[in-house]
Amino acid sequence: MDFKPPFQSITWNDDRVTIIDQTFLPEREVYVDLNTAGQVWDAIKKMKVRGAPAIGITGAYGLYLGVKDLNEGSFDTLYSEADRLAEYLNSARPTAVNLSWALKRLMATIYAAKEKPIEEIKEIVLDTAITIHNEDRRLCKSIGEHGGELIPENAKILTHCNTGGLATGEFGTAFSVILHAHHAGKLKQVWVDETRPLLQGSRLTAWELQKAEIPFKLNVDSAAAFLMQQGKVDLVILGADRITKNGDTANKIGTYSLAVLADAHNIPFYVAAPYSTIDMDLETGSEIEIEERDANEVTNFGNKQTAPDKTDVYNPAFDVTPNHLISAIITEKGVIKPNFKTNFEKLFG
Amino acid sequence: MDFKPPFQSITWNDDRVTIIDQTFLPEREVYVDLNTAGQVWDAIKKMKVRGAPAIGITGAYGLYLGVKDLNEGSFDTLYSEADRLAEYLNSARPTAVNLSWALKRLMATIYAAKEKPIEEIKEIVLDTAITIHNEDRRLCKSIGEHGGELIPENAKILTHCNTGGLATGEFGTAFSVILHAHHAGKLKQVWVDETRPLLQGSRLTAWELQKAEIPFKLNVDSAAAFLMQQGKVDLVILGADRITKNGDTANKIGTYSLAVLADAHNIPFYVAAPYSTIDMDLETGSEIEIEERDANEVTNFGNKQTAPDKTDVYNPAFDVTPNHLISAIITEKGVIKPNFKTNFEKLFG
Repeated sequence: MDFKPPFQSITWNDDRVTIIDQTFLPEREVYVDLNTAGQVWDAIKKMKVRGAPAIGITGAYGLYLGVKDLNEGSFDTLYSEADRLAEYLNSARPTAVNLSWALKRLMATIYAAKEKPIEEIKEIVLDTAITIHNEDRRLCKSIGEHGGELIPENAKILTHCNTGGLATGEFGTAFSVILHAHHAGKLKQVWVDETRPLLQGSRLTAWELQKAEIPFKLNVDSAAAFLMQQGKVDLVILGADRITKNGDTANKIGTYSLAVLADAHNIPFYVAAPYSTIDMDLETGSEIEIEERDANEVTNFGNKQTAPDKTDVYNPAFDVTPNHLISAIITEKGVIKPNFKTNFEKLFG
Repeated sequence: MDFKPPFQSITWNDDRVTIIDQTFLPEREVYVDLNTAGQVWDAIKKMKVRGAPAIGITGAYGLYLGVKDLNEGSFDTLYSEADRLAEYLNSARPTAVNLSWALKRLMATIYAAKEKPIEEIKEIVLDTAITIHNEDRRLCKSIGEHGGELIPENAKILTHCNTGGLATGEFGTAFSVILHAHHAGKLKQVWVDETRPLLQGSRLTAWELQKAEIPFKLNVDSAAAFLMQQGKVDLVILGADRITKNGDTANKIGTYSLAVLADAHNIPFYVAAPYSTIDMDLETGSEIEIEERDANEVTNFGNKQTAPDKTDVYNPAFDVTPNHLISAIITEKGVIKPNFKTNFEKLFG
């Protein structure tokens, strides 16, 4: 199914990359041009661009912007300067896997082209960055198409966190499924969990839904169960940070809660993520270490204090949903149903 | 069991009522004297005092403050002036059931004393206000004592919203159970749901726990399921706005979610509330109308906008938990176990 994306979070324009500055959302829609590797570093560091795939794509364009201005005669000097640039860009967000992956891929491409003229190598770097972007676009589109087939007529879908075009090259993951269902005329309404503590649901997903002209309502996270009890939710769909060999899924805190609640109300619970999210080196979710984030995400809001001084906080970034609570995992390669372990093994060959 | 309350939210001092001004919490602990009925009206209106029982008690003192300065020779004029004052005080928070109940009780007391001298009637009004306050203190203490017996050694308790001394005459309801368990040396730790959208958990319950020197950690509401999954919660205890004849319980949004999650993890789920919360005129929870609150509780924080303009919000003030998910209801008359309908009928005689 073909339709225009509701917006472009990242666009390559001849000699610069244009991004939507997410720090202005949801109040203002501001696009900024990044003309140098330094500006890209700054945009990643200041979270103007966020979401693992979006960071990787922007970083790839950033490396090209740095490389294109290099005035190096020999391949060796070019390569070592490019490597220095890649390290620098990676330092803007060292934990973002997609960023280091994209930069490594570009460096490998440069190395593979070592016999070519410098100017041609520079063109290859740009082509590869554009390829990384387009691959993500196709991947997201494919997730949306596969997932869209699972959505019933007049669907009322509940989602959590942000999984849309802001976080990816285009369309998003779980959000892409919602978009495709909408364009197929199957969507009645989306429920958006605000997604505490950082409110990616109310700040970002609500903005994307509005931009796509999809009817939605925002709710506090703890109201999801009540919505299900009232028959107001037909299915839950959300993203994944990491999926283990048996299908256990790590995702934004609150995901496991929704999975248990969906199960108790006999509501399908779908995870949508790129195939690369499946980590065949991890047997089960118990091997995933839970990252704790800063207490002040919970105890402060803007400049306002919301809990007493010295309040002890437990602020896990994500939780792990066991495979038996997941109805299906939607990837660009298709919809994977339980038993996940068996079906992953078939896919991985 | 006897112990000092960690603080007094309302104190009568000879000729004035002193309250903790809750609008300064959790940042500052500020007590203010209310010397006139007008100041009491203002304190209720501006939510300096909140929580149904606390509002009722403060309003009762407020009526005395108004009546004591009346210079009326005849009972009839005194009565009609007192009635006007009661109406005025009630207008500060017309939906607060305890406020209108307390004011009506005082008016009935005045009427019953109509043969007595005016000065004596005024004393009776003060005595009755103090009685209303002391009754609530005893009731809360009794809930704490009864509930305390349900708490195992080394208990890790999860609670939601604010049910403590701030909202009542002293000790609170569910919070009183926590306090009693703490003083019995049975408490390991309390988990505090921040309780979106108004954050009564982080703003108020965290403050009360700190004041009582009870170890606690604050968590976002959607992390409760994850805590249960990790074996970090032994039981859930919270309050009730209204309980129907069959035990169905209306309480702060998020309560039903916790009940389903506790059930899925085989964790006891307790409701603590005054016996008067049980409404024998309602057969089941389906008869309870769900109040929707203002969208900007969810779309704004302080002066900061957290969702796009024109975002449609569903913001139910509370939800209804069906009786089969409730392990016991703790009242000042004792612990009531299922079958609630049968056991309520025994109690109501």
